[in-house]
Amino acid sequence: MLNTKITGILNGMRQKNLDSIIALKPENISYVTDFKPSSFSVLILKDEPILFTSKLDIEDASEVSSVQVEAFISMDDIKKKLSGIVGIESSMTVGTHKKLLNNFKTEITDVIEISRIIKSKEEVENIKAALQIAESSIMEVEFSGTENEVAAQLEYNMRVRGSSKPSFETIVASGKRSSIPHAQVTTKPLESPVVIDWGAVYNNYSSDTTRTIVETEKQEEIFQIVLEAQEQAIKSIKPGVKASYVDKVARDVITEYGYGDSYIHSTGHGLGIEVHEEPSLSTKSEDILKNGMVVTVEPGIYLEGEFGVRTEDVVLIDNGAKVLTKIKKKLSF
Amino acid sequence: MLNTKITGILNGMRQKNLDSIIALKPENISYVTDFKPSSFSVLILKDEPILFTSKLDIEDASEVSSVQVEAFISMDDIKKKLSGIVGIESSMTVGTHKKLLNNFKTEITDVIEISRIIKSKEEVENIKAALQIAESSIMEVEFSGTENEVAAQLEYNMRVRGSSKPSFETIVASGKRSSIPHAQVTTKPLESPVVIDWGAVYNNYSSDTTRTIVETEKQEEIFQIVLEAQEQAIKSIKPGVKASYVDKVARDVITEYGYGDSYIHSTGHGLGIEVHEEPSLSTKSEDILKNGMVVTVEPGIYLEGEFGVRTEDVVLIDNGAKVLTKIKKKLSF
Repeated sequence: MLNTKITGILNGMRQKNLDSIIALKPENISYVTDFKPSSFSVLILKDEPILFTSKLDIEDASEVSSVQVEAFISMDDIKKKLSGIVGIESSMTVGTHKKLLNNFKTEITDVIEISRIIKSKEEVENIKAALQIAESSIMEVEFSGTENEVAAQLEYNMRVRGSSKPSFETIVASGKRSSIPHAQVTTKPLESPVVIDWGAVYNNYSSDTTRTIVETEKQEEIFQIVLEAQEQAIKSIKPGVKASYVDKVARDVITEYGYGDSYIHSTGHGLGIEVHEEPSLSTKSEDILKNGMVVTVEPGIYLEGEFGVRTEDVVLIDNGAKVLTKIKKKLSF
Repeated sequence: MLNTKITGILNGMRQKNLDSIIALKPENISYVTDFKPSSFSVLILKDEPILFTSKLDIEDASEVSSVQVEAFISMDDIKKKLSGIVGIESSMTVGTHKKLLNNFKTEITDVIEISRIIKSKEEVENIKAALQIAESSIMEVEFSGTENEVAAQLEYNMRVRGSSKPSFETIVASGKRSSIPHAQVTTKPLESPVVIDWGAVYNNYSSDTTRTIVETEKQEEIFQIVLEAQEQAIKSIKPGVKASYVDKVARDVITEYGYGDSYIHSTGHGLGIEVHEEPSLSTKSEDILKNGMVVTVEPGIYLEGEFGVRTEDVVLIDNGAKVLTKIKKKLSF
């Protein structure tokens, strides 16, 4: 018996006149089979799906996977299972394509990614559990010492609460470094403000939150503008709305206050098995919001050479916007 | 002035009759420019190399990069810089290839990866520093509680010592789970034996070490066989030797003791900016060892349903084998 997730993907595959789909991206394999491979694995989707995993993974995979598991011996075994037009992920590498599919007709398709955009209740529960771990973890952090000491505490707290790893490289950017949106953690002592952007992974699902601890009057002023941008953007979220419109709402607020040029990234992104997935809340996005999508809303203002402020919450689209992040907006030292 | 690393890569490029090379893999960009991008970045290598980074990275990149940095605005800017035959990484995705290079003649080349195989003194120092962080970190771990509590302590210790992140997903696999080479950390209480496979990242360079804490007589017996396999394999390492021969030496020892079928992975891999890179110490490898390579040597025996043992050290090929791992082979609870 195939589960509804798989039958949906197979339907999408047939609509595109593909004879099979080959998936290598661990996140796509984990979405379809519930097993996240640790080494090279190949999922073939057709009437009887098969997951090929290496010997390193086969014991775990056989226990967990919702589709039949076979040991990966050689590329030839995989080629034997393929025929006709093969749907491939846009993330497949040209090296793998050359080795595996040189003699096949292939078509880039993102049927699995498209299926992943709308989250099931169970998926939303996993994201909420990841958020819960991330939030209770930051509440126990002592904001003193160096950036990397704060990151160490936060990551320790998430680990002992059951997170398998940080959902992305933790950001603790303080003082001038807060003006770099993706600043790497340093061994410098904390200064104000402190931007913390962090997430946990629970059951393969990610959380993603940002808070900025501000101190001076100027920092507080910028903080309030970012907050207003975020509130307006969240209010604008509902099914049927263009994702680019939500970006525009946040950007307009920041521009009105004169900081438009200092808002140097997009307003948000989908969140699930990957920490960045569809849809994109950006100027150029062509996505339309739908019920069941989970997105981040994370405006920021970055004053080069001075400081930066960002606030990020996770939102489930459920008629309106349902904010899944529970932690308060303002943390303090 | 181009540094010798870049001139070497440009020479390799010309020998292959390529007009330019385009690199997107963050590890390749970091190797060439010293800047590790946090978001989509493109390095174009030709007489005047250029690094395109997003606005998110440009402040950091401009400070660190050894090649000229420009803001990435659109794919068209990149296309304008390309002409003739373009060398592409085998890791480029088919999606990016289609978007960016559909109208170009491309050839898969791994000129940068090949340059990365032989480490400079400075690179070896970075690997040694990562190892030092990893080793001093495990010495402070209290081996009690659950698998994830041990992983949390170990990762905390590495963070406060300056590691930017674990070099791969930390393995703490105890009791029966130790028979799974890539076991995910669970929230189960520790049992014997405990396999710990962990690494730090320092200045973008990785370490990779495994130790198994054994308790029973049977575990001790297997531990000694693995140790013998590792010692013999390390002894066999010198420039000019086939990488597959080193694998054979380890495998032969384990097979002699009757556990050949329980050695289900290869003997080692190159280590550097990536935790798995060339050369491969495996049955099918065609690599030849050379001075300046850094490899892991990590035989293991996995008794399904019972337990597993693995021991892993890092070796620099420097006429003979110079073991960079300093920590003792036998840890205890």
